[in-house]
This record gives sequence, C-alpha cells and structure tokens, in this order.
Amino acid sequence: MKKFTDPAILQKWCANQKKKGNKIALVPTMGYLHEGHLSLIREAKKRADIVVVSVFVNPVQFGPNEDYDKYPRDEKADWKKCREAGASAVFFPTKENMYLDRHSVYINEEDLSLGLCGARRPGHFRGVCTVVAKLFNLSHCDIAIFGQKDYQQAQVIKRMVRDLNFDLEIVVMPIVREKSGLAMSSRNTYLDEDMRKKALVLSEAVRTPKAGDKTAVISKKCIAKIEKAGLKIDYFECVDGATLVRSAKIKKGDAILVAAFAGKTRLIDNSIVK
Amino acid sequence: MKKFTDPAILQKWCANQKKKGNKIALVPTMGYLHEGHLSLIREAKKRADIVVVSVFVNPVQFGPNEDYDKYPRDEKADWKKCREAGASAVFFPTKENMYLDRHSVYINEEDLSLGLCGARRPGHFRGVCTVVAKLFNLSHCDIAIFGQKDYQQAQVIKRMVRDLNFDLEIVVMPIVREKSGLAMSSRNTYLDEDMRKKALVLSEAVRTPKAGDKTAVISKKCIAKIEKAGLKIDYFECVDGATLVRSAKIKKGDAILVAAFAGKTRLIDNSIVK
Repeated sequence: MKKFTDPAILQKWCANQKKKGNKIALVPTMGYLHEGHLSLIREAKKRADIVVVSVFVNPVQFGPNEDYDKYPRDEKADWKKCREAGASAVFFPTKENMYLDRHSVYINEEDLSLGLCGARRPGHFRGVCTVVAKLFNLSHCDIAIFGQKDYQQAQVIKRMVRDLNFDLEIVVMPIVREKSGLAMSSRNTYLDEDMRKKALVLSEAVRTPKAGDKTAVISKKCIAKIEKAGLKIDYFECVDGATLVRSAKIKKGDAILVAAFAGKTRLIDNSIVK
Repeated sequence: MKKFTDPAILQKWCANQKKKGNKIALVPTMGYLHEGHLSLIREAKKRADIVVVSVFVNPVQFGPNEDYDKYPRDEKADWKKCREAGASAVFFPTKENMYLDRHSVYINEEDLSLGLCGARRPGHFRGVCTVVAKLFNLSHCDIAIFGQKDYQQAQVIKRMVRDLNFDLEIVVMPIVREKSGLAMSSRNTYLDEDMRKKALVLSEAVRTPKAGDKTAVISKKCIAKIEKAGLKIDYFECVDGATLVRSAKIKKGDAILVAAFAGKTRLIDNSIVK
C-alpha cells in the first residue's frame, strides 16, 4: 500500500494509474477509522482497480467553536485498517499543503446545504464541497464512496458532482451500527458508557416515523423522547429524501434526520422511510 | 470537426480521446470569434492533439443590467472560424443543459476577484469560475488557453486551478489588437466609427505608466486623458501582476488595467510594465 502526503505526487501517481486503464475509487475520510469507513473501502475494492483513501481532518469544514483541535486522530491505526481493508493508497495531507498561502477559492452549494446541519454549522458544507472537489481532482477518481450517516453531505456532494459536471459516480453506503444500534462515528469516542446508552434513543427515534404519519405530531413525540433520554435536541426533521424539503406528511423515501448533543458531543443519525 | 451540444456526449467523447492517449486543449469562449480567439485556438493546436472550443454566452457571469441578451452571437461564422483555425470539436451548449433545474453549486474566488472588474460586476467571477470549472470537467482538458485581455480573469482562473487542484495547465496568450491598436473584443461590434477612434486612448493609456512612476500621479494623468477623449472611466489601476494589489510605485511586471465606457459599451484593456 502506497502512502502519500504531497498532493502533487498523489495526483501524478493517480493520473498514471488512469493512463494504465485502471479504474480509481476514492474514499474520503477524516480518519480515526471505524467499521463504517471500512465498509466504504471494501465496497470501493469491489468496484475499482485502485482504492485511494484520504485521511484529512479538514479545518475549513469546522466552525470556530467546533472540535477541530480535539477531533480524534490515529494515523498508525488508520494505516493498518486501510491495509487490511484492501486500500491501494492512503493520502495523509497536511493542512498546509492542502490550503496554500492565500488560498481563496471555495465551492458553495446554495440549496440543499441551507437547512439542517448547514443552518447550524455555517460554512460547514462550503468546507466539505471545497475539500471534496480538491480530492476528486487529486485522485482522478471514477467513483467516490460516502456513508449515509452524513445524509445531507451525500446529497450536497451529489449535487456538486451534477452541477460542476465532475465525471464520476457517487456511491452512498448504508450506515454501519454498533450491536446496540448506535450509528458508528469517530465522535463516539467522546462518549462515556452512560452517554452511549442514552444516545441509543437517536437510532430509535429515526426509525419511529412511518409513511402516512403527520410530521408535526410524530416529530414532537420523537423530540420529547430524545430530550427525556437526557440529550439536547439540535434538530429532528422529516424531509423529502432528494430535495431535503420538509414533508408535511411522511412518505416512502423521506429521510428522517436527527442531530442532538450528548453532553458536549454532537451526534447525527438518520433513516429512510420504507 | 465534431459538433457537440449535449454536455454528457462531449464529456464521453473527451474521456475517450484521453483514454487513447491524446492530449486535450480547451479554448473557452463566448463566441463571436475574432483574431484574438483564433490565436488561442492556433496555440492550442500546437500544444495538444485535440482542441475543444466552447462557444457559450454564460448567463451566470452577466449582471442583471448587463448585455447578456444583446451580446453578439453568430454560431455559423464561429463554426467556420473554428474549422479554419484547426479545432477538433466545437461545443455549443444551451443555458438549459449547462444549468439544470435547481442548479445550486457555484465557485467563489475571494481574493483576486474582489477588486477591479469584480468590484464593478458583482457575481461576474463567480459565474466565470463556475462555468470554467464545468468546462474543465466536461472536456477533460490537459491545457486551457485564455487571452490576456481579460487579465484579472486569467489570474482568477489560475488561482482556481491551484486551489482546487485541477490537473491542467493554464496558458495565457497576448492581446491581439487591430492595426489601430484597439484591443480586439466581441463587444467592439457595438462601436461606431467615431467611438472606435475615441477608444484608441485606452491602449495608449495602458502603455503610458513606466517602472518608477508614482501610481497616483500617472493614473491621474491617464484618467484625464481618457475622459478628455470622450470615454467615461470605470477604473484605471496599476497593480502587482500576480497579487493584483495596487502598487504605490510602478515596477516591472505590474499590470496596468483599464475599464471605461465608450457610450454604453464597456471596454477593457491592459498592459504589463516592462
């Protein structure tokens, strides 16, 4: 497995792989890899000849009061997990070589990113779109694989690919959960045993609304349940799965999205209505 | 010479050319081609196996009170000129197939684009960056060729290529002038004989400042000259050629940039200090 830290060298290597006729899959991550990430890498391996995993805690997508500095990092463990999962190359850039002096170009998505996490985390999706576009260009990928846990992110990225005509396919893989039902997240490392138990209410809540339910009624119920469990609700929304517009009445294909604070830790989860 | 109107079909064709090992050059234009554009196409032909010329009056880079509707168009003449200059393919998209329903992704450059034309034409460079990134992705180009007449644009595009890691080279070709000295522009078609003569003052003005001159003094002189000739000044600036920051004292490599109205027609010109 190859290791890259210099964007220019990665790009040259990827361009060369492409010239040889190899199909390239990109798995962009912020590292501290868990089974969710590994499921993306394994899927990438099925679909492409070359799997590039990027491990980069992207400063531009964090707000000034968010957890950029304390976001968990473990390059050594990530390296081992990538190798075991079958990656061809891991890209560990630095913030200095990703954002050069006077970096001044950013990508804004101005529809799907306005609500939900976008409304609570100003600039978050601008940072995500910018870094993902950079990684697309650096990796020359034919496919990029994302997790459904960041549901809004996946929709925003798909829109970016469409609107900027990136010549690649976005694949979104299901949420991987712990046995308890808790959605896997690098941020779960912030939780103590008690909080882990309390946080189970999120996966229960997103599975509660059913097609035909009135959103106002069911949301109120779910929010009350979450708050009762000892979490602080950030949002609980039932939206059209493609447009992210709030549904008055829940229908098949809607996305049920939640964000809540378990202590200081902000957790998200979601489910698609069957 | 191939003709494309559908972005997806162009992209497939270009991807295929790339797979065959061909080097692709893109020449993005708004059509109504003149010798300036043709010099770009000829240069492209020297540097690449495949030359793709795009002809698209991009609505997103025009302000609400600008000349989008009356911008000159002549597809038939453009087609003929592209063929004569040696293009491999011409791409004539429609605004509907370039900007799909709910288009919501835009690229902003937030340093070089703030002053000069960017300050007078809000949203202009956002439109330029967005469409150019789309054309990069659609054409799979290894090189893209721009004219120096749009000096600020060329610098903004170079920054975008750097900051978003597009794997391609930007080439900027010198301004092509009419015998009189007037910089070639599709918008010159708006000028009558009298205005064409008056407009010559612009090419004279941008050649006036010399290394060592005090910017404040020489700018005042040049502006007075332009206004005396019967044009309305928009801006006259002496800036560092790379950062576009105003120079207090003019030095080699500085860019002298002018924008002025000849009647209702906004003209630009520039020169690099030797």
